[in-house]
Amino acid sequence: MRPVYFEDEALKLIDQTLLPTREVIRSYTDYRDVCDAIVTMVVRGAPAIGVTAGYAVALAAREFAGRPDFAERMQQACDDLRGTRPTAVNLFWAVDRQEACLKAALTAGQDAYVALRAEADAICAEDIAMCRAMGRAGAALLHLGDTVLTHCNAGALATADYGTALGVIRAACEAGKQISVYADETRPLLQGARLTAYELHKDGIPVTLITDNMAGWMMRQGKIDAVIVGADRITRNGDVANKIGTYSVSVLARENGIPFYVAAPTSTIDFEMMTGDDIVIEEREPNEVGHFAGVQTAPEGIRFENSAFDVTPHQNVSAIITEKGVLYPPYIQHIPKLKNEG
Amino acid sequence: MRPVYFEDEALKLIDQTLLPTREVIRSYTDYRDVCDAIVTMVVRGAPAIGVTAGYAVALAAREFAGRPDFAERMQQACDDLRGTRPTAVNLFWAVDRQEACLKAALTAGQDAYVALRAEADAICAEDIAMCRAMGRAGAALLHLGDTVLTHCNAGALATADYGTALGVIRAACEAGKQISVYADETRPLLQGARLTAYELHKDGIPVTLITDNMAGWMMRQGKIDAVIVGADRITRNGDVANKIGTYSVSVLARENGIPFYVAAPTSTIDFEMMTGDDIVIEEREPNEVGHFAGVQTAPEGIRFENSAFDVTPHQNVSAIITEKGVLYPPYIQHIPKLKNEG
Repeated sequence: MRPVYFEDEALKLIDQTLLPTREVIRSYTDYRDVCDAIVTMVVRGAPAIGVTAGYAVALAAREFAGRPDFAERMQQACDDLRGTRPTAVNLFWAVDRQEACLKAALTAGQDAYVALRAEADAICAEDIAMCRAMGRAGAALLHLGDTVLTHCNAGALATADYGTALGVIRAACEAGKQISVYADETRPLLQGARLTAYELHKDGIPVTLITDNMAGWMMRQGKIDAVIVGADRITRNGDVANKIGTYSVSVLARENGIPFYVAAPTSTIDFEMMTGDDIVIEEREPNEVGHFAGVQTAPEGIRFENSAFDVTPHQNVSAIITEKGVLYPPYIQHIPKLKNEG
Repeated sequence: MRPVYFEDEALKLIDQTLLPTREVIRSYTDYRDVCDAIVTMVVRGAPAIGVTAGYAVALAAREFAGRPDFAERMQQACDDLRGTRPTAVNLFWAVDRQEACLKAALTAGQDAYVALRAEADAICAEDIAMCRAMGRAGAALLHLGDTVLTHCNAGALATADYGTALGVIRAACEAGKQISVYADETRPLLQGARLTAYELHKDGIPVTLITDNMAGWMMRQGKIDAVIVGADRITRNGDVANKIGTYSVSVLARENGIPFYVAAPTSTIDFEMMTGDDIVIEEREPNEVGHFAGVQTAPEGIRFENSAFDVTPHQNVSAIITEKGVLYPPYIQHIPKLKNEG
């Protein structure tokens, strides 16, 4: 299942706001529409946003080619893309990479669009390869017959294909380990119910959907053997920003002696940021909490909070699964080495 | 706000399935319809269910008066009421009390309906008095300007009036303590969004609604000073059955050094049950998890779990607020004494 791909000279996105009841592919040729798609979460998931942004920079280059203000226009496009969502580091990583590609292309006298399109294809292909590598590395952590809890959607739909957390589960299933999954529904936008349950069920992996507030009770009853989640940003010390509720799941896992794994490519690591205290957490529309699908669920006139992410302290993370292998604590020693390797 | 009362020879219930957008009072004269109202959660909340069941037994006596099979019919009515929901002990407590009342009335040659109506009125009045007494006892635990997190609805709507957990908050506010509240929305049936936010806002108490998976992150950021929840059953050792998600909140509160209080009348204590391991947890319709406000959220064909309650171990409970005063650990010593007093 590929939620982001380039075909017929346009960027294609599965509209994830309509899943699981409607499967609609949208087509984009204007980077401004891609910005809207990221903000409104037609596409979401840190790696998938990175891949999408890579293609959006290429679309901008095609649009502005030959214009005297090409450089300023491209700067504006990159800034607009960076302004869509603040927490996922892959977005910034992909736009930075495209800016470097653009500079190199111009210096070498190459066609900017051709170079950026090729680079976006490379980002996309690398993402799939990284998910496969994470799957291989992480599958070893799961045992025959394990039941794994996951939160939000760190699946094929959050990447170019295969997934991070769900990639590990897929790899373990492909290795014959007969994994079953509990999926938190993940309010307010229900990525667990709408996306994780959808893609696992499509792949024939047994999935049980629960509300977010059931996760602790399932753990307490011994129904969960391991937790695997994705990440939107990992800092140098191993703190992990991920979908709101991940912190709670990590505390409940530790309380119940259950390993808590994070699966993320090294492009999700922010090597410049020392701890999770510095991560900007996106605050989204209050209406997401007070409504669902147009139905009002709360009285008028009250206050809402709607943080899209939280930060799980590195002490709660049993291991971080990357495409370069599995990292264990102390992360502050092991994470910086990855950068030097890269 | 009185969700349960008797007027014009009928039992009246605010239809809590329609709040907060519609305020509809339903009228009941047949105990079977009252059973349905309990099952479908037109009325919910352990104390409110107890009061409702008390009136339902009286309705049955009025219907069956003068029939040769009066005794069997009354037995059937009581059994039907006990079969509506398994977890809240107040239901069983109220039906037992009405059976004792009926027996005494028959022995004394009194009119059964008149006696049971009066007893139901007494249960109702006592419930309100107990909520007020709990409020006075519990308000002392809160400090000027505290922000309190609550889960589900343990408010006026869950009792005959005033509330248990929200009664404590109301009493603290009446004492000038300027309390504000964070309410978990409480999936799947959203009692926090629909009921708690509604009744606190109506009373002018500042309330912020969050999704269930935000509670931990709010605590971690230092935004919560105390947690107060209600209870559906408390065992002899201080274990507490309450709305699903309460266990998770208790673990997160302890992790963050935040006191976790339970407010419940002594009618919620099951003196015969030693620990929470023996509590029957109600499993409800899967559809409640696969839908949100009537909209399908998950793909067809997957599995669901939908436990209505969980059990918070006594180790996580800082104090239990009752109408007879505040209990502290070790509960196994202090709870049995209450029975001897009663």
